[in-house]
Amino acid sequence: MNVTEFLTRSSTEMEEGDKVADLFRRARLGDRSALARLISFVEREKEVLSFVPKELRTEGTHSYLVGITGPPGAGKSTLTDRLVASYRGQDDEVAVLAIDPTSPYSGGAILGDRVRMQSHALDSKVYIRSMATRGSLGGLAVAVPITLRVLELASFNEIIVETVGVGQVEVDIVGSSDSTVVVLNPLWGDSIQANKAGLLEIADVFVVNKADRDGVRQTRRDLEAMLDLSEPKKWRPPIVETVASDGRGVSELVSALTAHREFLMDSGEIERKRQRRALGEFTKATLRLFERSLWDSEEFIRLHQRVKEGEMEPTRAAQEVIDRILRN
Amino acid sequence: MNVTEFLTRSSTEMEEGDKVADLFRRARLGDRSALARLISFVEREKEVLSFVPKELRTEGTHSYLVGITGPPGAGKSTLTDRLVASYRGQDDEVAVLAIDPTSPYSGGAILGDRVRMQSHALDSKVYIRSMATRGSLGGLAVAVPITLRVLELASFNEIIVETVGVGQVEVDIVGSSDSTVVVLNPLWGDSIQANKAGLLEIADVFVVNKADRDGVRQTRRDLEAMLDLSEPKKWRPPIVETVASDGRGVSELVSALTAHREFLMDSGEIERKRQRRALGEFTKATLRLFERSLWDSEEFIRLHQRVKEGEMEPTRAAQEVIDRILRN
Repeated sequence: MNVTEFLTRSSTEMEEGDKVADLFRRARLGDRSALARLISFVEREKEVLSFVPKELRTEGTHSYLVGITGPPGAGKSTLTDRLVASYRGQDDEVAVLAIDPTSPYSGGAILGDRVRMQSHALDSKVYIRSMATRGSLGGLAVAVPITLRVLELASFNEIIVETVGVGQVEVDIVGSSDSTVVVLNPLWGDSIQANKAGLLEIADVFVVNKADRDGVRQTRRDLEAMLDLSEPKKWRPPIVETVASDGRGVSELVSALTAHREFLMDSGEIERKRQRRALGEFTKATLRLFERSLWDSEEFIRLHQRVKEGEMEPTRAAQEVIDRILRN
Repeated sequence: MNVTEFLTRSSTEMEEGDKVADLFRRARLGDRSALARLISFVEREKEVLSFVPKELRTEGTHSYLVGITGPPGAGKSTLTDRLVASYRGQDDEVAVLAIDPTSPYSGGAILGDRVRMQSHALDSKVYIRSMATRGSLGGLAVAVPITLRVLELASFNEIIVETVGVGQVEVDIVGSSDSTVVVLNPLWGDSIQANKAGLLEIADVFVVNKADRDGVRQTRRDLEAMLDLSEPKKWRPPIVETVASDGRGVSELVSALTAHREFLMDSGEIERKRQRRALGEFTKATLRLFERSLWDSEEFIRLHQRVKEGEMEPTRAAQEVIDRILRN
């Protein structure tokens, strides 16, 4: 089995491992170029987490992970910008991971939002990174949690992960944060639309941004009604009205997040969230490694060809691959 | 290896296979309850496609597959409803597969849209099916293409797959249709927002729905500018203005789709699209079978426990699983 060989590190790769360990040490001391290199490795699917030096691992530092999501144009980036400013006001170090879909037109992640965040560009205690959704879905689902772990090991106090889009991968990513902020706008469709996008279930805090526009009361009413109908949980998501463009409501958002964080600590829920994240990461990484190993399998390549030529039903071919690979 | 046992069908399962084959024969003759049972099997991840009777397979019928996507509230369902009516006017048989995220509040797929489509409820030549995104992502990514294949084998002339949300899975699903319609509204964010959601790349036809509202010209201009900037392709997506609620522009949409379908046929692109779909299905089904087999692996279960207890880095544990399972 070629995969075994692939996983058996050669001596050159061992030296690579030492380099990665060194990058982790430097990243922890605030070296941003070391951090950037580590994340680039993750994006290229190079293994990094096995090389975390023991002394960093045992410290067990945890960052507070805030997820921000909502439909395109809701004002997530401006709000993130404001949150960063607020955490910096407490002298915290903050990282922002922005998940941007790639466009073949621009040839990379769209930087529009990042440009808006230039207010923090010269602040060495703020690290902003865009991650493109280029490549396969599986890639992103694995790369994001690993990157969050890397940022955690670099000991940021807060990590904000922001996604555009309201799709299932994005919702999954952001929904596994410690605290998830769902940003809506007044009259953003009727409430059933928010429900459809799967956003209601993951929200720990709702923000109605652009609250200087008409319809904010209606939106709040819709959300409250929806929450009333839902099964009572230990934490009822508060609804915060903001105007991110001029900063109104941002301190209320920070208070709501602080309250949620305290709830997580007091109830022990934060440990359960971290456990779930680790287990999700484990399963996804296992699948990803298997996916990569497929192209080392002669059986897979042969059946791929047969499916391509229309000689075999794809799902039947898949059964045969699994049967053969696992029997070897 | 338990998976091998799992894949070796027992005699009872063989009888099951005969039953499934019979359901396919009945579905082909227009038996909707047989069709519904087949799709329910797919949703429960029961294998069905290996049991397609030979006489159905060799016919090689292909349906024309139309994908419809766009942000929540854009009016996709109303437009789908109009499209169905138009295809029915040609006496075609039409299937609609609507991907609805599940809400734990409602306990199932949200039926709001389906209710709107009741105009076709009594038409036996129209089959409408909602598929919930409940369960894992991988589940949906596999279940949708298999369901489309089942509908194709039931010999519908057109199959419309409609997704809410603009996330990557949804975009992937809809983007692998023969013709993909992206529905926007006037002033739906600036054009960069559409780009962000990854929608520009998959569109074969743009619809600006609710075109009786302000801003339709601006939206058209933004889209045209975006298309001008993009790499020239053999097919430039037309922009169609509709008011789905009263039917305006729907015949233009149908014409645009017919033109695109002819382009696909003439250029041979339709064969390449079908090949890509089959190969995508093969890879996804392989991964899904592997994922299901993981819980038969003692190694996986042991390491799952270690990750849960925080004794092992998730990605390191994943490497060990792959190494052990593939070595066996």
